[in-house]
Amino acid sequence: MIYFHNDYHDMCHWKVLEKMTSLHEQPMPGYGEDPCCAQAAQKIRALCGSEDVAVHFLVGGTQTNLTVISAALRPHQAAVGAETAHINVHETGAIEATGHKVIALPSDDGKITAGQVEELVRLHRASADCEHMAQPKLVYISNPTELGTIYTLAELEALSSVCRTYGLYLYADGARLGYGLTAKNNDVSLSDMARLCDAFYIGGTKCGSMFGEAVVIANDALKEDFRYLIKRHGGMLAKGWQLGVQFDALFENDLYFTICAHANRMADRIRYTLQELNVPALAQCTTNQIFPIFSDAFLEELGKDFTFTEMHRVDATHRAVRFCTSWATTEESVDALCSAMRQIAKA
Amino acid sequence: MIYFHNDYHDMCHWKVLEKMTSLHEQPMPGYGEDPCCAQAAQKIRALCGSEDVAVHFLVGGTQTNLTVISAALRPHQAAVGAETAHINVHETGAIEATGHKVIALPSDDGKITAGQVEELVRLHRASADCEHMAQPKLVYISNPTELGTIYTLAELEALSSVCRTYGLYLYADGARLGYGLTAKNNDVSLSDMARLCDAFYIGGTKCGSMFGEAVVIANDALKEDFRYLIKRHGGMLAKGWQLGVQFDALFENDLYFTICAHANRMADRIRYTLQELNVPALAQCTTNQIFPIFSDAFLEELGKDFTFTEMHRVDATHRAVRFCTSWATTEESVDALCSAMRQIAKA
Amino acid sequence: MIYFHNDYHDMCHWKVLEKMTSLHEQPMPGYGEDPCCAQAAQKIRALCGSEDVAVHFLVGGTQTNLTVISAALRPHQAAVGAETAHINVHETGAIEATGHKVIALPSDDGKITAGQVEELVRLHRASADCEHMAQPKLVYISNPTELGTIYTLAELEALSSVCRTYGLYLYADGARLGYGLTAKNNDVSLSDMARLCDAFYIGGTKCGSMFGEAVVIANDALKEDFRYLIKRHGGMLAKGWQLGVQFDALFENDLYFTICAHANRMADRIRYTLQELNVPALAQCTTNQIFPIFSDAFLEELGKDFTFTEMHRVDATHRAVRFCTSWATTEESVDALCSAMRQIAKA
Amino acid sequence: MIYFHNDYHDMCHWKVLEKMTSLHEQPMPGYGEDPCCAQAAQKIRALCGSEDVAVHFLVGGTQTNLTVISAALRPHQAAVGAETAHINVHETGAIEATGHKVIALPSDDGKITAGQVEELVRLHRASADCEHMAQPKLVYISNPTELGTIYTLAELEALSSVCRTYGLYLYADGARLGYGLTAKNNDVSLSDMARLCDAFYIGGTKCGSMFGEAVVIANDALKEDFRYLIKRHGGMLAKGWQLGVQFDALFENDLYFTICAHANRMADRIRYTLQELNVPALAQCTTNQIFPIFSDAFLEELGKDFTFTEMHRVDATHRAVRFCTSWATTEESVDALCSAMRQIAKA
Repeated sequence: MIYFHNDYHDMCHWKVLEKMTSLHEQPMPGYGEDPCCAQAAQKIRALCGSEDVAVHFLVGGTQTNLTVISAALRPHQAAVGAETAHINVHETGAIEATGHKVIALPSDDGKITAGQVEELVRLHRASADCEHMAQPKLVYISNPTELGTIYTLAELEALSSVCRTYGLYLYADGARLGYGLTAKNNDVSLSDMARLCDAFYIGGTKCGSMFGEAVVIANDALKEDFRYLIKRHGGMLAKGWQLGVQFDALFENDLYFTICAHANRMADRIRYTLQELNVPALAQCTTNQIFPIFSDAFLEELGKDFTFTEMHRVDATHRAVRFCTSWATTEESVDALCSAMRQIAKA
Repeated sequence: MIYFHNDYHDMCHWKVLEKMTSLHEQPMPGYGEDPCCAQAAQKIRALCGSEDVAVHFLVGGTQTNLTVISAALRPHQAAVGAETAHINVHETGAIEATGHKVIALPSDDGKITAGQVEELVRLHRASADCEHMAQPKLVYISNPTELGTIYTLAELEALSSVCRTYGLYLYADGARLGYGLTAKNNDVSLSDMARLCDAFYIGGTKCGSMFGEAVVIANDALKEDFRYLIKRHGGMLAKGWQLGVQFDALFENDLYFTICAHANRMADRIRYTLQELNVPALAQCTTNQIFPIFSDAFLEELGKDFTFTEMHRVDATHRAVRFCTSWATTEESVDALCSAMRQIAKA
Repeated sequence: MIYFHNDYHDMCHWKVLEKMTSLHEQPMPGYGEDPCCAQAAQKIRALCGSEDVAVHFLVGGTQTNLTVISAALRPHQAAVGAETAHINVHETGAIEATGHKVIALPSDDGKITAGQVEELVRLHRASADCEHMAQPKLVYISNPTELGTIYTLAELEALSSVCRTYGLYLYADGARLGYGLTAKNNDVSLSDMARLCDAFYIGGTKCGSMFGEAVVIANDALKEDFRYLIKRHGGMLAKGWQLGVQFDALFENDLYFTICAHANRMADRIRYTLQELNVPALAQCTTNQIFPIFSDAFLEELGKDFTFTEMHRVDATHRAVRFCTSWATTEESVDALCSAMRQIAKA
Repeated sequence: MIYFHNDYHDMCHWKVLEKMTSLHEQPMPGYGEDPCCAQAAQKIRALCGSEDVAVHFLVGGTQTNLTVISAALRPHQAAVGAETAHINVHETGAIEATGHKVIALPSDDGKITAGQVEELVRLHRASADCEHMAQPKLVYISNPTELGTIYTLAELEALSSVCRTYGLYLYADGARLGYGLTAKNNDVSLSDMARLCDAFYIGGTKCGSMFGEAVVIANDALKEDFRYLIKRHGGMLAKGWQLGVQFDALFENDLYFTICAHANRMADRIRYTLQELNVPALAQCTTNQIFPIFSDAFLEELGKDFTFTEMHRVDATHRAVRFCTSWATTEESVDALCSAMRQIAKA
C-alpha cells in the first residue's frame, strides 16, 4: 500500500529527529523558557523581518487556534471564516468552547475576500439592533486553505486593509504554511504574513516536524500575557524545548522551505497526470493537497494500492477525494500513483 | 403614530397587571417557591395533559434558551436550528457563550424538516472522523418561527420521531407560542407540544405579560437540578412569584388563547389587504407577524404614520419589513393601517 | 407569623408600583432604549456627581455580577473577593461559568482590605511561574457585605488606591447599597462610589423595587459594547423601561434613601434589644441585617411567631441566624419581635 | 551545577527514545488510532486488571485534568480538591475555563479525607438553598500529592466509598503516579486505582517519557464520546502514536516501575541526610519530591552548586524549597548534594 491519505502519517524529517535526539542528555529549563525555543524564535523573527513579533510554540493546530482566538476576543465577539474553515468544521466546536461564535462566509475555494468581510461588518454596524448579534472582530483565514488554495499578496493586502479600517484582527492558520509559501504561483513571504496579519502560525506537524506549531504575534494588543493563555488551555508543554528544537532544525538552511517545495513538486506531477486524464477537481490548487473527483469504480480500483481521504459524494457515481504529498513522499510513490491512474483510466 | 413595529411595546394585558397588583401587600417566599408559581405550573401541567412535566418560570427568552440548551448538552454537543433561528442570529452568541456550536440548516420559511435533521445526523455518524466535528444532539425549532410560520402536527410528529430515533432532544422556542396555537390553520395543541418535544417554553413577554417565559420539561433527563442551572445563569428572580402570578392570570379562563387569537385576527385583516393589493411577502404566515415587501417610496409614505421593523433590502428599490399585532392592537389601528395602504397603493 | 427572614419577600414600595402602573397604556421602545431608563440614568449620574458614568439596568444581582465581571476580565484573569463573597458562595458558580476563577481571601466580617489585595498581587507577580496561576485582575467587594458590615470611606480609598496602583479593577456589589449609604456610621456617598470604583451596582430588588439593579460604570475601559454583554448573558429585558421606571421612582425625592434609612432604624431597634439581652452576633453591623447567635431552645420559641434565616451552627446548642428589615418593616413588627425576645430571655 | 529543581528537565529514558526513533520510517494512522496506542492501552488494561477500562493518551497534565473533569460534570457541578491541588493553584484557572468551580478543602499534607468530602456533601444537600451553590460532584486527588505524600489503600477505599455513596466521581491526577506506586510505604496498585477511581491518569512526562499522560477511565458514564472531548480541547495529537509508543516502552519489562523506584531511592538518601541534619520539612513524604526548610544563609550556599525550587517563605530567615529526583538522577549527584548539605551544616 502506498500512502497519500494525509500529510501527517510520517514521523518527521530526519534532520529534525537528529537535532532532537542530539539533546537527549541535556537538562533543559521547562515550559519553553529554554535556549532552543529562544533560538528558533530568533530565526523566525529574522524570517519575518521584525524583531518585534512575539513567537510562541504550541503542540497542535486546534490548540493554537483556540488559544489565539480566545486571547483576541472579548466575550461577545466572533471569529469570521469561510464555511469550510477548519475552526468551523473540524475542531469539534473548540472555538465555541471558548465562548465565541464562528460566523461562516460562503466560499467555493476555501478563501474569503476583503469584500465579504467589509460587507459583513458594514451590515452589522448598520443594524439598529447590532448588540443582539455576535460582533465580528477577528477574521480567520487558512493559508493554504482547507482546499489547498493560497492567497495572493494582493488578496492578503486587501483583507488586511479592510481589517485595519474596521478594527478587526486578521489571523492566519498556517498548518500547511510551508506548502503555501513554496507553491509555484505564490507571491507571499513570511515577512508579508507578519506585516499583514495580526497573528498567524507556522505549521510544523504537517510540514516536517513530529509535532508543534509556531505562533507569530505581530499586534501588540495580542501579546500581553499570552503565556497565561497557553497554560490556561493546557497547551504549555513541560519539556517545551522539544518544540523549539524542531523549529530550530526546520529553519536551519531553509530546510522548511526545501522540503515543502519538494512536496509541492510531487503534487504537481500528480496534477499533471490528472489534467492529462481530464479529471475534474473540487478546487484548483498548487500546494500539497489535490482534490480530484473520480467515479466510484475508478476509486475502487485505485484504492487497492493507494490510500486517499474521502471528501464527499458529488453525484450518484462520483466522489471527491483527497491526495496529499509531504516532505516524505518519494518520486517512486508518485510515479506509481500516476501510472496506476493512467492504467485505470485506459481500462 | 400608530405602532406595528413589534409585539412588546405594550406593558401587559390589564388582567395580568390587576392580578399582580392585587398581591402588593402579600409577603411571598423567594426564588419561585411560592403558591403563585405552583398554581400557574399546575394550570400549565393540566393544559399539557401531563402531571409529569416540570414547569419553571424565567424572565426572558434568550435566558430561557441558553439555560435549557446548556442543561441538555454535554460539552462537545451542538444545537441544530434553521439559519434564521433566533439562537443563531439574534442572541449575541448566547449559546456559544455556554460552549456549544449552533449548526445552521438552510430554510426559506424559518422551519426545518425531519429529513434535514436525519441527513445531518446520518452524515455525521457516517464520517470516519466524526469526533473532529461538534456532535448534533439537540434540535431547536421556533413555533411560530422567526418568519411567523407554524409547524403542522405532522411536521412536529416527524421531527420528534427522527429525534427519538437518533437520540436527539427536540426543543421548541415558544416566544410567540400563543399566536401559533391560535392561528387559523394550526392543528397543534399544548399537549402535543408536551408529548412531542423534550422541552419547550410558553412565551409570556410577547403574549400579554410584563415579562416571563414558562419552561415545560417533558424529558426526565432534562429535569434534574434544573434550578441550579437557572441560578447559575443569573435567571433566578428573587421575587419569582411575579412570574407565576402573570402566567396564572394568562391561563385563567383561557385569556392567553383569547388575546393571541385576537392578535391573529388583526393580522389576518392586514394580510387580506396586502393580498388585495398584491403585495408579495417574505413568508406565508398566519400568526401575528407579517413580512410584506414594499417599494422604498411606499414605505416612506407609510412610515409617516405607522411604525414597522426593517428586515432587509430585497432589491434596489424594495425592502422587506415586518408588522406585528398583539393583544393590544385595536381594530381602529388596523383599519387605519389598511386604509393607508390602500390609499398609498392607489396614488 | 411576622417575617424577618429576608428583605425581598415584599413586592415593592407603593410609589414604585404606582409609577409603573401609571404607564400601563404607554407604548415604549424596547430593550432599555426608552425615556424611563434615560431619566433614571440621568438621576443616577447626577447623584454620582458625574456625567461620564454609564448606567445600565439589569434584572437581578447574579446576572449583574456575572455580566460586569466577565466584561472586565480577559480569559486568564480572576476576580478576588472575601471567602464569604456572594460570587464565591451563593451564585452556583456563575462567575466560573464565564470562565473565571474567584480567588477567596479570608475575612471575619465580610470585608477585605487593601493590604490583603496588595499582598496577593505582589506575591503573584513575584512568582517565577506566575503564568501557571490565574491572574488577579478585579477586586469584588460587597457594600454592605454579606454580613451587613460597611466599608468606611478610608477603607474604600485604600482599596481603590491599591487597585489603581496595580492595574486592577474595583467592583462593588451594591445589592443592599441603600442600606449601606444610610447606615448611621456611614461616611460614603454615591459619588464616592463612582469616584473610587471602576463599576458598581445600586440594588433595587432588596431596596424597594419589584426587581432590577442599576449598574454604574465609571471606567471607560469597561463601557464599550456593554449592551452586547448584557444581551449575550440573557440579561436584556424586552420591556426594559420597567427597570428604568422603578429606579426613576426610587430616586424621586430621595425615596431610595428614605426607605432604606427606615429599615436601618428598624434594625437598630432590634440591635438595641439584642445588646440589652447580651446576645452575641456573627458580625457588628449597622445596616438592615442582623446576625445574632441564639440557643436552639431560644430559636425554637422565637420561631413560633417570627421567621428568620438559618446561617450555621456555632456549637452543640447554639446557631447563628439572620434577621432582615426592609422598607416594608413596620414599627409594630419590630416591637413584637423585641418584646418576644425579651420574654423568651426572661423565661 | 547539579539539577534538583524539578523532575522534567531531562528528555526521557533512553529506552523510550530508542523505541520511538525505531519507528521513524513507519507510516502511522493519525489521532491515536494506531497499533502503538492499542498495544500500550492493552498493557495498561492488563496492569489495571480489567479489560473494561478505556485508555486514552494525551500530551500533558493540565490538558488531561481539564478534559476529564469537564467531561464528567454538568454545568452547575464543581470539582472538590485540596487547597494545594494542582487544579486549584497551578493551572491558570483551566478548570474554571471549562465553567466549573473548584471547591478547595483545607489540607496540611496535600491529601483530603473521606470525612471532609462527606461533610461537604452533607452540608450542601442539607442546605435549604443548595441550588444557589455549585454542586460538589467530582473529587480530585493527586497521588502522590503536590507535597509528595501518598494515599494509603485504606484512605483510597474510604474516599471511593464516600464518593459512591453520594454519587460523586473520584478522579486521581497521577502526574507522578509511578513514584507513588513504588514508594516504600505504598500499598496501592494500578488495579486498586482502576477499581477505586472513576478515572485517573498515569503520568509520563515526569516519569520517564518525553511527554504524555495515559488516562484510564473505569466508569462507563465517563467513557462515551471521550475522543470528541479530547479534540474539543485541542488535546488530540495528529501523530498520536508518539504517545502510545512511549507508554509501550514504559510498560515493557516494568521499566516505569523500575525507574521510578530508582528515583525514590535517590530521594530517600537525601531524606536520610536531612534527618541526620535535623532539617524540618513541609511534609513527610516518601516519593521523589522533598520539601525541606532551610535558613536563607544555608540556601545561598547550597544554591551555588545545586538547583532547587522555591516554595515559600516560612519565617524571616527560613524558606521552604523543593528538591526532585527522577529516573535520570545519578548516585553521584545525590552524593554530591548530601555531602554539600553536611558541609554547610557543619560550617
